[in-house]
Amino acid sequence: MTIDETPRGPGAGGESRAMGPSRTTARDLERYAGLFARRTQGMKSSAMRDLMAITARPEVISLAGGLPDTSCFPSEDMAALMARVAADASARALQYGPTEGLEGLKACIVEVMAEEGMDVGEDELLVTTGGQQVIDLVCKTLIDPGDVIVAEGPTYPGAVPTFGAYEADVVQIEMDADGMRVDLLEETLDRLAAEGRTPKFIYTVPTFQNPAGVTMSLERRRRLVRIAHQRELFVLEDNPYGLLRYEGDPLPPLYALDGGEYVIYLGTFSKILSPGLRLGWTAAPRPVLEKLNLGKQGADLCSSTFGQFFVMEYFARRDWRDLLGSLREVYRRRRDVLLEALEEHLPAEAHWTRPSGGLFIWATLPEYIDTTDLLARALREHVAFVPGRAAYLDGRGGSSMRLNFSGVGEDDIRQGVRLIGKVVNEQVRLYSTLTGRAPAPPRTAAAAPKQEAGQPGGEGARIVPLRRRAGGER
Amino acid sequence: MTIDETPRGPGAGGESRAMGPSRTTARDLERYAGLFARRTQGMKSSAMRDLMAITARPEVISLAGGLPDTSCFPSEDMAALMARVAADASARALQYGPTEGLEGLKACIVEVMAEEGMDVGEDELLVTTGGQQVIDLVCKTLIDPGDVIVAEGPTYPGAVPTFGAYEADVVQIEMDADGMRVDLLEETLDRLAAEGRTPKFIYTVPTFQNPAGVTMSLERRRRLVRIAHQRELFVLEDNPYGLLRYEGDPLPPLYALDGGEYVIYLGTFSKILSPGLRLGWTAAPRPVLEKLNLGKQGADLCSSTFGQFFVMEYFARRDWRDLLGSLREVYRRRRDVLLEALEEHLPAEAHWTRPSGGLFIWATLPEYIDTTDLLARALREHVAFVPGRAAYLDGRGGSSMRLNFSGVGEDDIRQGVRLIGKVVNEQVRLYSTLTGRAPAPPRTAAAAPKQEAGQPGGEGARIVPLRRRAGGER
Repeated sequence: MTIDETPRGPGAGGESRAMGPSRTTARDLERYAGLFARRTQGMKSSAMRDLMAITARPEVISLAGGLPDTSCFPSEDMAALMARVAADASARALQYGPTEGLEGLKACIVEVMAEEGMDVGEDELLVTTGGQQVIDLVCKTLIDPGDVIVAEGPTYPGAVPTFGAYEADVVQIEMDADGMRVDLLEETLDRLAAEGRTPKFIYTVPTFQNPAGVTMSLERRRRLVRIAHQRELFVLEDNPYGLLRYEGDPLPPLYALDGGEYVIYLGTFSKILSPGLRLGWTAAPRPVLEKLNLGKQGADLCSSTFGQFFVMEYFARRDWRDLLGSLREVYRRRRDVLLEALEEHLPAEAHWTRPSGGLFIWATLPEYIDTTDLLARALREHVAFVPGRAAYLDGRGGSSMRLNFSGVGEDDIRQGVRLIGKVVNEQVRLYSTLTGRAPAPPRTAAAAPKQEAGQPGGEGARIVPLRRRAGGER
Repeated sequence: MTIDETPRGPGAGGESRAMGPSRTTARDLERYAGLFARRTQGMKSSAMRDLMAITARPEVISLAGGLPDTSCFPSEDMAALMARVAADASARALQYGPTEGLEGLKACIVEVMAEEGMDVGEDELLVTTGGQQVIDLVCKTLIDPGDVIVAEGPTYPGAVPTFGAYEADVVQIEMDADGMRVDLLEETLDRLAAEGRTPKFIYTVPTFQNPAGVTMSLERRRRLVRIAHQRELFVLEDNPYGLLRYEGDPLPPLYALDGGEYVIYLGTFSKILSPGLRLGWTAAPRPVLEKLNLGKQGADLCSSTFGQFFVMEYFARRDWRDLLGSLREVYRRRRDVLLEALEEHLPAEAHWTRPSGGLFIWATLPEYIDTTDLLARALREHVAFVPGRAAYLDGRGGSSMRLNFSGVGEDDIRQGVRLIGKVVNEQVRLYSTLTGRAPAPPRTAAAAPKQEAGQPGGEGARIVPLRRRAGGER
């Protein structure tokens, strides 16, 4: 019997479905709707979650998720470490722990942050249930309904439903190859100030941005931190990928530039070890940390003690940088394969970013192609991506897509992009037939988009989607 | 090197404390305060969490926490199961999982719920990060600021900060030996209706209530469910302890009586297996479940896959009822020891509940004793309990305390109660000296409070604290 064949008790599974009547109806949906809190109106499913269900099917090649390759972690190693946790700490690993996290785990976090040049004290840390919980807790601490959050456009699709649940008004700032356009940020802050509005925080993934793959330049980092200080604005720096750099020199995180005043830092073990542990953390100014801690206490009391002991054991017995080194090798090759495949299969009008690290490439197709519609066609070919609209709160991003290169092997990346190219090129031909325009020359003859990588940062062209709604930014 | 001696990286621990300047000041506290969301004003630390830090000191006998005895879980068994998870499912156990939880884990939950006579379909379940997250998600789904929640008085102290974070107006209903006074509930609902207010949900721990230890009678359960249907009111049934019954026949959970219409059920693996896994669940009407799922998605994406695989392995390879059987034996004896010790050491004016299961006894002292003050004295004697006020939102409960009997051994229970008795009797003597009244006769000569257990349900007297604020319920 394998682990999936867990025996079922009385009333389980199909049996209970036959036994129990179907319990909710359309009438019920109406009946309950009036009882929900107002914030539920802003709680939309992220496109990614719905995609996850589809892409879990084994026949689908998924370039949609942000999944690390957990098969890089040797299972015999895991078994040995787990056995040690059991032998040394079974009763404690199974028990509740402090809300702020175990001291031993905080020491591991200090070590990880030091690797990126950050100096943090253990009493400035709060262990969380994945990095996602940090976004939730920061909103819980700072956001009243209608408050403004400034984010990149496109932004992390998983933050979109969280922002919605707190009824925030999200203003998105365009990016280019050097990350968030901090000049546009200042214009936006001035405009908001003229309206009497001050954002509660600026949300950014400065390094190997999700979904765009671009990295904020050092100059812009300094300027952003200066703006935060001048205007007394919190910045939530979401940095899950900083250590997954495949080339070039690392840049200092905003947290290191800030000195612990306005930057709330989000880190996670999900991308350097395992997302299944659900362990992340935040480093924040102590008055903020106290509120985040209270919010966490009400939300889930503490994060998995069991998982925390496993990480402590892993850090004590292994060099965590070894796994990171393997992941970098694997992902770098996969990124290159994805870039080559895009070059081969996408039409000349398409362009995309060339990330130096992280997990994602952001591709933008001719503006007459809607990637939400395209996804339905792609799924029929058994390939998936995240449509660009999932990364905006206002419907923009319609001709873009996020492509992940960490979660599937090289052959699947090639085959997946071939299939995406197939459905894209069908759309291109259809468009040229309908409009009578000749399709663009094939990519090999065109100025290849990778030429655009000659821009500062070497990571591709402007990120702003080609199709914009009338009325500008929002 | 033991697991606690994780090596520290550069800049870790005391070193970084010396290196980094102290980063926040009183001025900072003021500076940041204006930036917080309004709800943070309602986010108070639960007394329990602050206590946890103190009671983690090895010299303190803590009757404060709600900790199960995790040493009952054999560590060699844990090691074997973990090794199997690693061998069979390492990559999947380390990966993200679906927000709603793994199918295999849902099958385990169906089995646990069937054990208490509940018939639930896997598509009516959402796996959560401990039972605590269910309370948070239900508030997120249903509560707008100022909305009414009806709860028992006293209520679960851990729910108090969650209700506060959602700015709920909590109305608490007295209990007696048969649990919540459903007659008073109806009066309260009528009074609220006259004010044009309808509670968003009724929060109850009907079985072995936390903190009171009492159990709602069958008649009241039926009546409560009838009220929910008649008035179209959700009930959040928090049932962590239902399977920890030490005598008498089980009663049907509200969820079983309701038929999946208005009862949102909260279950957890914390008390039947391990709280360190942080795995709980909710069963709810599907339209509600969809909103809870969206809320969870924004909060932490999914609960620990690693932990879910461990539970699946445990259910597949062991009979989970075996550990439950051992826990029942251990806790029943500890409860009896606690009851005997209270009889021996508390003054005659004190009275307490006699639970048939669960983890807690609620003791009420002479009304001139303030248990919050008493706790400070008790801690000097190295013993801790939860002061009663933590279980109320309006300052009531001042002469009561919650005593846990699951987390420490029989000798520690005896010693802990002896020390509590010592500080209580000091207060009694001080009071009689100051007032010139003779102290009450010693307990052995008095009508012992256990006589009160002759009331329906056999679980002790009225729970309402002796000291009430003027102005009634709130």
